[in-house]
Formats: sequence, C-alpha cells, structure tokens
Amino acid sequence: MSKNLSGIAASAGIAISKVFRLETPDLTVEKETIENVQEETDRLDAALEKAKGELQVIKEKTKNDLGEEHAEIFSAHLLVLSDPELVDPIRQKVKDDKVNAAFALKEVSDQFVTMFETMDNEYMKERAADIRDVSKRVLAHILGKPMVSLAELNEEVVLVADDLTPSDTAQLNKDFVKGFVTDIGGRTSHSAIMARSMEIPAVVGTKTVTQEAEAGEMVIIDGLEGNVIINPSEAELNEYKQKLEDFQEKKKEWAKLKNELSKSKDGVHVELAANIGTPNDLEGVKNNGAEGIGLYRTEFLYMGRDELPTEEEQFEAYKKVVEDMDGKPVVIRTLDIGGDKELPYLDLPKEMNPFLGFRAIRLCLEKDDIFRTQLRALLRASAFGNLKIMFPMIATLDEFRQAKALLEEEQEKLTKEGTEVSDSIELGIMVEIPSTAVMAPQFAKEVDFFSIGTNDLIQYTMAADRMNEQVSYLYQPYNPAILRLVKMVIDASHAEGKWTGMCGEMAGDETAIPLLLGLGLDEFSMSATSVLPARSQISQITKEEAEKAAEKALQLNTAEEVKQLVEKTFL
Amino acid sequence: MSKNLSGIAASAGIAISKVFRLETPDLTVEKETIENVQEETDRLDAALEKAKGELQVIKEKTKNDLGEEHAEIFSAHLLVLSDPELVDPIRQKVKDDKVNAAFALKEVSDQFVTMFETMDNEYMKERAADIRDVSKRVLAHILGKPMVSLAELNEEVVLVADDLTPSDTAQLNKDFVKGFVTDIGGRTSHSAIMARSMEIPAVVGTKTVTQEAEAGEMVIIDGLEGNVIINPSEAELNEYKQKLEDFQEKKKEWAKLKNELSKSKDGVHVELAANIGTPNDLEGVKNNGAEGIGLYRTEFLYMGRDELPTEEEQFEAYKKVVEDMDGKPVVIRTLDIGGDKELPYLDLPKEMNPFLGFRAIRLCLEKDDIFRTQLRALLRASAFGNLKIMFPMIATLDEFRQAKALLEEEQEKLTKEGTEVSDSIELGIMVEIPSTAVMAPQFAKEVDFFSIGTNDLIQYTMAADRMNEQVSYLYQPYNPAILRLVKMVIDASHAEGKWTGMCGEMAGDETAIPLLLGLGLDEFSMSATSVLPARSQISQITKEEAEKAAEKALQLNTAEEVKQLVEKTFL
Repeated sequence: MSKNLSGIAASAGIAISKVFRLETPDLTVEKETIENVQEETDRLDAALEKAKGELQVIKEKTKNDLGEEHAEIFSAHLLVLSDPELVDPIRQKVKDDKVNAAFALKEVSDQFVTMFETMDNEYMKERAADIRDVSKRVLAHILGKPMVSLAELNEEVVLVADDLTPSDTAQLNKDFVKGFVTDIGGRTSHSAIMARSMEIPAVVGTKTVTQEAEAGEMVIIDGLEGNVIINPSEAELNEYKQKLEDFQEKKKEWAKLKNELSKSKDGVHVELAANIGTPNDLEGVKNNGAEGIGLYRTEFLYMGRDELPTEEEQFEAYKKVVEDMDGKPVVIRTLDIGGDKELPYLDLPKEMNPFLGFRAIRLCLEKDDIFRTQLRALLRASAFGNLKIMFPMIATLDEFRQAKALLEEEQEKLTKEGTEVSDSIELGIMVEIPSTAVMAPQFAKEVDFFSIGTNDLIQYTMAADRMNEQVSYLYQPYNPAILRLVKMVIDASHAEGKWTGMCGEMAGDETAIPLLLGLGLDEFSMSATSVLPARSQISQITKEEAEKAAEKALQLNTAEEVKQLVEKTFL
Repeated sequence: MSKNLSGIAASAGIAISKVFRLETPDLTVEKETIENVQEETDRLDAALEKAKGELQVIKEKTKNDLGEEHAEIFSAHLLVLSDPELVDPIRQKVKDDKVNAAFALKEVSDQFVTMFETMDNEYMKERAADIRDVSKRVLAHILGKPMVSLAELNEEVVLVADDLTPSDTAQLNKDFVKGFVTDIGGRTSHSAIMARSMEIPAVVGTKTVTQEAEAGEMVIIDGLEGNVIINPSEAELNEYKQKLEDFQEKKKEWAKLKNELSKSKDGVHVELAANIGTPNDLEGVKNNGAEGIGLYRTEFLYMGRDELPTEEEQFEAYKKVVEDMDGKPVVIRTLDIGGDKELPYLDLPKEMNPFLGFRAIRLCLEKDDIFRTQLRALLRASAFGNLKIMFPMIATLDEFRQAKALLEEEQEKLTKEGTEVSDSIELGIMVEIPSTAVMAPQFAKEVDFFSIGTNDLIQYTMAADRMNEQVSYLYQPYNPAILRLVKMVIDASHAEGKWTGMCGEMAGDETAIPLLLGLGLDEFSMSATSVLPARSQISQITKEEAEKAAEKALQLNTAEEVKQLVEKTFL
C-alpha cells in the first residue's frame, strides 16, 4: 500500500528514487561532575578546532560548486564558533559549575537557540538554526560520534531526514541525491533556499516522513505541489514519471527565454525583475534573466553586526549592485527596520503590535542621522548606474515629502562637496499601507513610481497578521478588495504618466500573474528563480484576455471565486 | 505672573476658583519583622473591614446622587477587597515571611497593579486603578492615617491632585467643587468619565500641576481645551469669565434640543444615537436625547467574571435595553473580544500583533458555542423592541455569510421551540477593516446596514497602532484616505437602498461632523454627552454646504488641509 504525505513545496521538481535515511547520531548528553577543568576545556577546544576545520572544507567546496553567495552561510557558522558571546559562557560553565564540556555546550547553545527562536522574526530564527547546526557538529566531536558524511553516497537516493542543516545540504551530490524530504523546516529555511539554487526537488515540513519511510523503500517527492508518496503503486509511478518528463521539458522551454524580453502573447512588454537582499544574490538574477532589480532590501546590510554600517560600506554595496546590473534598473528600498525586524544596537522599544508600529520610514524620519547616511550612500552610488530610490511604509503624503526633503538636502550637500550624483534618480514609494493605495491619485502627482508590497498590503487590508496561524485564512492575495486597491494604484500612476511595479510574493504567483497583467501592472519583481516560469506564462496570455478576466475578478465576491476564475481561464 | 499649563480636556466646562490641594497622606511603608502573626493578621482584617464599611457608604451616596451606573465601580471595589486572589497572598506573606501587614499589602497590591498596567488594555488598566485605589484606603487604615474627606469642603474650590480616585470623585460636592485638575490620568479613566456625568469641568494629565499650584491661589481650568492658568491676570480672568458665560449659554441652547429630531439647517434628518456598554448607561442616553443606540458593546457582559455569561443573563440585559428604548432602534454588536481585550477564562493564546489577531467574529466563528449562546439571547430579546444585530471585524463576505448562517440556524431552532423572535431584525456589519470598505458594493447586496467603526478603520488603514505613542501622529481621522473609504461605504449602501452609520469617536467630533453630513452618513452614534452639542452643530449647517465641503476634502492631500478647510468653513 502506498502512503501519501503532504508538506511544503520547497524546491520545484519531481524525484523518484529509493529512501536514504539520514540518521543523526545519538547526541544525548548527561550532566557529569568533573575534577579537572583544564582537561574538559581542552576537550572543548579540540572539538571546536575540528569543527572549524570541517566547516572550512565545506565552505570551500560550496564556493566552488555553488558560488560565493551560498558559501557565506559557512562563514557565518565559522563566526559563531569564534564568537566569545557563545564560547565564553561555555568555558565559564565548565569552570564554575565543574561540569563536562558536552553538557555546558548543550546548555548554553540551547539557551541561545531558544532565545533566537522565540523572536518571531525570520532572520533571527535562521540564527537559531545556525547555532543548532554548529553546536551539533561540535558536540558530535566532543562525544566522539562523527556525523554521517553525505559525500560518501554512491547510488541514486531521496534523502529522508528530520531536518537538513545547511552543512548537510551543501554536501549533497546532485548526481546521487535526486531530492530530499524532511519532517520540519519551511520555504525560507536555508536548506530550502539552497535546494532551489541547486535545483534539487525538495518537500519540507511533512512532520512525519521519518516515521513513515523505511530505508530502501521507493518514494516519490513532488516539489511542485508538496506531495510525498511512499511505496507508490505502478499507476502512481507512471503518473509521476510523466510529470517529471513534463517538468524537464518545461525547464528547457524556460531556459530558452533567458535572454528574451517578457512579452504577452500579443506582444505587450512588461518588466520582470528580481528581489535581492545582498550583492551576493546578483548571480541568481543574471542566471535567471531578470530585466532589472525591482527590490533591493537593504536591511541585511544592517543585520548580524554590532553597529550601523558606515556610509562607505553602504556605498560600496549599492555601487556594486548598480554597476553589476550594467544600466538595468535597480530599485533600492531604504531601511525597513523596526517592528518585528529588530536591530539590537538600536535599542528600540518593545511594542504591543510591532506590525502597526514604529518602523521603516517612520523610524528613519525620526532617527534622521541614520537615514541621511543611507541617502548619501545611495546618492553617491547613483552615479554608477541606473539607481532608483524607494521609501517603505509610506502612509501619508507628509511622510513622503519629509523623506524627499531630506534626500534633496543631502543631494545638495554632496553636489557642493563636488561629489558626482545622477541627476535623474527616480524616486518612488512602496504601496503597502491601505491609505496610500486609496490616496494613489494624490501621490501619483508627486512620486515617480509605485511599487506595491503585497505582503504587507494584504496584511493591513485584511487586518490579519500574516505570521499568525489562527488568522492565516485571511491572508488572501486574490480577495477582490486587494485587486481593487491594486487597480486604484495602477490607474492613478498611469493617469499621471508614471509606472507601477509589485515586489510582494504575489508578483511571482501563477494565479495572480494573469490578473496583474490585466490590471496593467508595469513591473513584476519576484524571486530570481520565478522569473523564467513567469516569463513563459506571460508569453502564453494575451493582454486582452487578461484584461477581461481582471475586469470580471473585480466584481466577484470572494477570493475563492477569483481563484476559480483564473484556474478555469488560464491554468 | 500667571502660569499656563496644558493637559487633557477630560470634562467640558470652565471653572474659576481657588486651589484646594488634595494631599494624599504619607503612606510610606517600611518592612518590619514581626513575631505575632495573629496580631498582624487581625490588624489587616480590621483595616479591610473599615475600608469595606466606607466603600459601602460611598456606594450608597453615589447611587443616590449619580445613579446606579456610577455606583457600580464601588461594587467592583468591594469585590476586590473580598477577592481571595488578592487577600490570601497578603495573609500568606505575613505568615511565611513574618512581615508586617502594611508591607505585605503593599508588595502584593503593587504586583497586581504592575501586572494589570502592563497589559496595554484599557479595561485591565482600569482594574489596576481600582486595586491601587482600594489598597491605598486599606493601607491608610493599617497605618492609622485616615484619608482626607472631600465631603468636608465648605467653600468653592478647584481641586488640585496628583490623581483622583473614583472614590474621591464620587464624594465631590458639586456646590463647592467647581472643577478639578490632576497630574496624571486620561480621558477614559473612571474619574474623567464620572466628571463628565457630574458635569464638573476637569483637566487631567497636566504632569506638573501639583508642583505649580499653591493652596489658595486663583486658578482657571478650561475643560474644553485642556488649559490651566494659575494666578491669571485681570485680562485672562475677564476672558474666561466670558467663556464660562458663553458655555453656560450654549448648554441652555443644547438642553432645548433634547426632544428635537436632529436636522440640518435645510431640514435633512440624520439620526443621532448613543454608544453604550451596559444597561446602566441608558439613563445618560435618555437625558441626552439620543434617538437610539447605535452601538451596544456587549463585551462588558463577559468581563470581570470567572465564566461565560449564560444565555439567560444575556437575554435579560438585551431585553432590558430594547424595552427601555421603547421602540427606538438598538444596534447590538456581537462579542468583540480577543486581541487586546482578554477574557482570562477563555485562555486565548498570546499573540505577536493582537490588533491583527484572533478576535471578534474570527473567534466567534471558531468558538461557535459561545457565539450561538449570544445569538439565541439576541434573537429572544428581539421580540421586545427594535433590536438590530451587528457583527464586528468582518473582513470577507465569507465570514458574514457564515455568521448569518449560524444566526438563521438558531432562529429556526427557537421558532421550532415555540419561542417568539422578531421577523424583521436588521442584520448589519461593522466596517472597520479596509477590505470591507473597499468591498462595500458587494457587501451592500447582502447586509441590511453598515456601521463604520472609525477607531479600528483608521488604525488599519494607516497601519498604525492607535495605542502606540510613537506612531500616534498617524491616527488621522481627517486623512482624505479615511474620507474616501467612508464615501465608498455610504455610496455603496445607498445604491442598494441600505443605510450607513458610524460608531467610532469620529462620529461625535465637531470637525468631522460637517464632512460626514456632507458624505451622506445616515446615523451618527457617539457618547451620550456629545449628542446635544452635535445636534446643535448640525442644525446650523445646510446639507448642501456640507456636501460641497466634503467634495473638496476628498481631493485634498493631507489631514491638516482637511482640518483647515472645515475650520475655515464651519467652526
């Protein structure tokens, strides 16, 4: 009998192969009282050194196989191992409490993991995963139970594991590992991100796959839909073999579009751009044929450090991106921090409702020294390419005017200092607050462009925290209310000869794309890996039929009705 | 030299008189080790009994002077004094720690106060104030330092105090106390609410009045604007004497309107209704000539108790209100709990962003046993008057349809059981979520009426927590975005022959009223004490000039521009 599980589709593709169970060695630790502190400390140091050596090797391998951006996670891991904030308390514990190094390590690292995990912030949760990964490696060495090396695999398998650490993932050999499936994890965990870049199909968060799948059993994983079938029937096998073939066919088709413009079936051009977080993401942007960068999130420059980045550091990062994009548009969003995205060194007050709180432009207008530094870096970088500036979380025209005034002041200063600044920087805003969508006609007279941030716009329009599972049913991109707001924004921009982009997840969603095309969206910015599928989809739709469908959708009553309309018409 | 302070205008009116400083006795407590636990416990019990006796007297006096609804707070205080959750830990502390009763009381009550205060929830904050008030009274008795009795005042004064407890306020003799001014407090504190009902002018939250005003100095307080002038000049005295006269004149004019319909200068009728929280508020509704109840918040029925109210308890409360209103419309809102309004006995999960969380209809649709009980009570009460039902926090048509289906199921059951139910109950929704305002054309086909809840609608539309001071500048009722959404809702309802009301604070605001009249709002629901001033204001405006102003306002850029337009045109 076949067993069906469902999980989160983490990396597109189909894999059909035998189960290989990745067993974590038993790393249970008992508290022991020790006599010789020096001996225990030496044991800890030796394990730390071994772990560092291994990580160095994995990092080099990753850099060669996957490129620098993926190797970066291991630089972060190496930093964790050298971080006195983690390591000193372990030594201290061994010394003060006279306990074994393994126990001290476990206690301290668990503490950090718990702290970071409860932060309800994607970035910090990733830090928790990093610490967990690294301390497991060190612990294995202290206990003398070496980790399984995935590099030794020499037959085709699908990996089944409770979780896959980034270091596990980095070691995967694509020739043998056809895909993986895990109990835990989400679409934004490092392993999921790496799997997408490596183009290894993956399903994560199945909760029970390690209980259900025995080593050697046949398994199908469908990274497109998030399905897992253990012991498939002949019929299922044939069905999925066909799916696999179709998918490979599709990928070939997509690859052909890499250097094409994005055009509808009747020849209307829209711009397909990519979202990035750091200059390291540029390679993916190019590999996937994005026509520009529609959202450069600058937060990462400010994270994982002890103090604000300098003007120079920021300038270098922005300059690298605009130069590398070689004249293609690069929309850089100014700092969107605060709320759930904390920067420890800014010491922001704890808020009751951080999503409705003091963040992004609100914070930048008050702490204008931080903002001015960023604006100067952006202005200086503008001389090196096609740089556009975008302010996040604008709720009122006053805020936009204040931000613009600060920009102009810094521009004037730079010009006086003799620093070159582009004289044609487009200045836009994120539309992610309902008031701004409703006031789009007034805004359109003063901004150069809009970029609709659907993640927040949906959350505020529906008054539902998108991280809160109890109200997640209200996160409805296809709700006609959202489409109506999107239409207001696009129409208002066009009435003033301006353009509207979208940089939320909705822009790369196959159900949304026909509607957005129909509503007249000018620029779609998405994960780099979504660009080619989106280009392919758009090439098969005429603008006219998209317009008709959008018109109908606006009059419907519910998100479900809209979804059905699109599926019937286009999918 | 005169000194000017400003604070929060807590109760309308002008008072000019001499300062009387209400000094709290020094209730500093030292920790003492005791030998005889029994003696200390007896001391505590004696103080508790004395405090209970006093509160009983104050409660009776309040009931006679101000009516039952104001006496209720002292029932709550008496409950606090008998609450084992507060009293037992004090006894325990005396016994276990061998400390004096005064110290134990202080420690335990401070703990409770801190806990309730940090809840960032108006209701819980009031509970903190109750505990503080009551335990001060008990402490004064333990320490043998009786509280000043305000009943002894026998000359005209303005009270100056750090804070005024409800028990202080209840004892005020209107013949002598012309007004009061405090360092702390807000517009929604019990004392402020009582001051408004007693029609004693009050300014609260000046921060420094107790440092600035000496006993016997002349002081002016302006409860209309929130100004305080200590040692006024001759010119200031004359100015405020005139203001006082004007205000008294106005009040006489307002009183004449008590039994009138609310009509614009050119004779267009709108309905001015009142918001209530409990049946006890009905007296104020009648005294102020409200034409109906536009919002009956049923939450209070569920608060301050250990378990859910029964169907019978609810039925009695709803029945009393509709019967007492004698055929006038009563809009009852179903339970709006969750988020920041917690009910300890429901054990709701802690949320990251409670304002965007699992509350109101979202919670009622999931916990439908609670919801059905309320719906049954409402349906049964509908036979006794003009009852309308309104669902809060509706974000999608699906939610409305689900809630309506539950109502119809219960209605059918009741009818089968032979229970009488009105066959013409109007069924409406709160419009307080942007998606619902935008989808008003679709909703208007299915609901009987809309009531715009501006407090939440503004908060979500601007994506700014209205309790968070750092973003309070974004709480902008006059922002053209809000006006545009209000217009969408009103227009949509009229297109389907339905009506739109408003039950947020904006409905009673003198700057908003002309605009709302112009936008076509059918019903304005506000605090009872705002009804007569609003009726007076509306009688002086023609619908035509209001429409022109509203039309202009919709095209403006900022809230400030809108405010200026109204002030120039109408105020």
